[in-house]
Amino acid sequence: MELLIADVGLLWSAADGGAARTLAVLAAILTVAKVCAAGAGAIGQPAVLGELLAGVVLGGSALSLVDPHDTVLALMAEIGVVILLFEIGLETDLEQLLKVGPASTVVAIVGVALPFGLGYAVCWALGLGTIESVIAAATLTATSVGITARVLSDLGRLRDVESQIILGAAVIDDVVGLIILAVVQGVAGGEQITAGGVLWIVGMAFGFLIVTLAVGRVVAPLLARGLGRVRMVGTPTIFAVVAAFGLAWAADIAGSALIIGAFAAGLLLREVPQAEQIEHGVASLGHFFVPIFFVHVGASVDLRSLNPLDPAQHSTLLFGGLLLVAAVVSKFAAGFAPWWLSVNKPAIGAGMIPRGEVGLIFAQMGLNSGQFDAGKFSAVTLMVMATTFIAPPLLKALFKAKPGVEEPPSGIEELVSGPD
Amino acid sequence: MELLIADVGLLWSAADGGAARTLAVLAAILTVAKVCAAGAGAIGQPAVLGELLAGVVLGGSALSLVDPHDTVLALMAEIGVVILLFEIGLETDLEQLLKVGPASTVVAIVGVALPFGLGYAVCWALGLGTIESVIAAATLTATSVGITARVLSDLGRLRDVESQIILGAAVIDDVVGLIILAVVQGVAGGEQITAGGVLWIVGMAFGFLIVTLAVGRVVAPLLARGLGRVRMVGTPTIFAVVAAFGLAWAADIAGSALIIGAFAAGLLLREVPQAEQIEHGVASLGHFFVPIFFVHVGASVDLRSLNPLDPAQHSTLLFGGLLLVAAVVSKFAAGFAPWWLSVNKPAIGAGMIPRGEVGLIFAQMGLNSGQFDAGKFSAVTLMVMATTFIAPPLLKALFKAKPGVEEPPSGIEELVSGPD
Repeated sequence: MELLIADVGLLWSAADGGAARTLAVLAAILTVAKVCAAGAGAIGQPAVLGELLAGVVLGGSALSLVDPHDTVLALMAEIGVVILLFEIGLETDLEQLLKVGPASTVVAIVGVALPFGLGYAVCWALGLGTIESVIAAATLTATSVGITARVLSDLGRLRDVESQIILGAAVIDDVVGLIILAVVQGVAGGEQITAGGVLWIVGMAFGFLIVTLAVGRVVAPLLARGLGRVRMVGTPTIFAVVAAFGLAWAADIAGSALIIGAFAAGLLLREVPQAEQIEHGVASLGHFFVPIFFVHVGASVDLRSLNPLDPAQHSTLLFGGLLLVAAVVSKFAAGFAPWWLSVNKPAIGAGMIPRGEVGLIFAQMGLNSGQFDAGKFSAVTLMVMATTFIAPPLLKALFKAKPGVEEPPSGIEELVSGPD
Repeated sequence: MELLIADVGLLWSAADGGAARTLAVLAAILTVAKVCAAGAGAIGQPAVLGELLAGVVLGGSALSLVDPHDTVLALMAEIGVVILLFEIGLETDLEQLLKVGPASTVVAIVGVALPFGLGYAVCWALGLGTIESVIAAATLTATSVGITARVLSDLGRLRDVESQIILGAAVIDDVVGLIILAVVQGVAGGEQITAGGVLWIVGMAFGFLIVTLAVGRVVAPLLARGLGRVRMVGTPTIFAVVAAFGLAWAADIAGSALIIGAFAAGLLLREVPQAEQIEHGVASLGHFFVPIFFVHVGASVDLRSLNPLDPAQHSTLLFGGLLLVAAVVSKFAAGFAPWWLSVNKPAIGAGMIPRGEVGLIFAQMGLNSGQFDAGKFSAVTLMVMATTFIAPPLLKALFKAKPGVEEPPSGIEELVSGPD
């Protein structure tokens, strides 16, 4: 009898203790992420860097409190990146993109082609296989529109011509990055790289986007109008979440990437009358979920594979270092692409340097597909973190920040500071 | 080679397909919950009822799309109830509670004692064991402040004396319900019911609340002041989530219930300067997580155990029916407790009838601890759902709703409509 009672008690507290422990881990993730983000902000660095560092501290490299293989945390991180890409879509005005002019476009094109080429050359020189090289080179392509916009806003220079060009180019190369993502996802999935295969993947990525946007432009306003009749608090937010999750799932089914669906949902819902309510509601969800993604990424970094005292790790450090040089030089050079304009070209180049979420997603993809070992994953993550470190002080110096000019937080910053 | 490639592809899409599938399930949960909530609203029923029905439809009884044993969904449901109780705490003004006067208090006391006694008598008459009887009787005690407030607001009668008494009593019996919850949790956990044991549990519940509130009243404003210096969007929301999750975990460690910690966090953060930002930010999280809780509860209902054509289920139906009669009669009678006042006493009684989240939490606890079988769980859930069905039309009739008088959504409704 005593035994039976003890058994029941154990069972109950085990079931309950599991939930309590996960709540404690989530509280720890959010607290450390917040503290590190605030710390990063205090030394003039973007918040996302603090969140990545929080992940390194909480992960296997140090405290071992966050297990990147935990299914619940992995799913919440996945929701985080879906919400982040939805928010980026919500901030992306396709028509505005067309207006930003040729300058943004050439910066974007050169800023994707040059890093990819240089990155591939580095990998080729180090003797990597084709698939690994494509994934590693792809991690260099996408500028983080989030990090860049946040830094420019902190400097009070969001309205400058250079900033407009940077933002336009960053947004364009975010879209291009999503296409590359689908290609690389196919490549990482082990598909043969043939011209036809790449075209098929590009076709699926474009096709999914085009069909979704074409159908969505008709359906979304109708749904939004129907939604307007539902007088329940929170309906627009849930509508947005359902659209983001639903299209993410549809993209997956269509052979595209989860986040392309989420991005498409954001692009579509930007046009509905409830867009502002959606932005506010989803921002709160982003404050909760997005840091979990960055902490989860940071927790996957294996610092032991970056130990400079261990000769076995020298190849990883060499790889990471060369990727970093390629990443910085190539994006900086892209700033000089609009040769016909007399603008502060070095500032544009510096603004394109920070890599962020998309590069990390590539790295995660390489790790998940088995193409990357822990060393290569850590090298790429190091490259992303270093570019994020380098850009803010460089931008500050090149823009010669006007003291006292402070921009009020705009939509883009709110998106950007989602993870803060 | 072909095989290897296929293997990698399979692995990758399995890992990714898992996330995509869960996103699709979450999108389905939120959509069906929303549609059923809107449908419930359209026929004059509270939204929470629609969400419970959505769970029945999505769960094992019908579509089998939602598996109540899935760990990811179970954890998200747990987060939902933690956020809901945090929101209830955020709306509960302890000092206001003391002012509502003796009327609310006697309604609350009679409204807890009478249902418990009648429920226990029903169980005793049916020959149930002591522990089962205590849990089943406890499910009758707590009026759902959420459902009641929402209905009163829909009728435009939130400011009436009767409504004030109902709301005060509902809030008091929510607090009493939390104490009973801790007692029942101990009982369900298999502890011997002795006077000393009950006192210990009551002591732990009160003790945890008192110590937390005493320490928190000093610490929370200090933390909030420090927080005011962090200029990052979303900080108050994350602070609130960390407080709710952290105190939920602490309550669990202290031998109290998760939701008592979350409720205490809400009580404390009501007093900080950022309370309004917190309310807005957490409301968005609630719109996402809270319906997952109610759908999860609904999905646990086994309709097969309520089949009137199956003679084996007659005992379940009899039990549910008798509990329902006890639930309605006892709370209705409680409305007559403030005998010295000349108010609309039947309306007060009707307002106390709807049971909600706390009753369902008891039922879930009974199921998890193994004290309830599927039949008893379903009978209790049926009772909760039926009281929720009965109250709104009864209240409407007894209040003789003033047509055209519509209250603007206030804080309490926003909390209440959290799950909508």
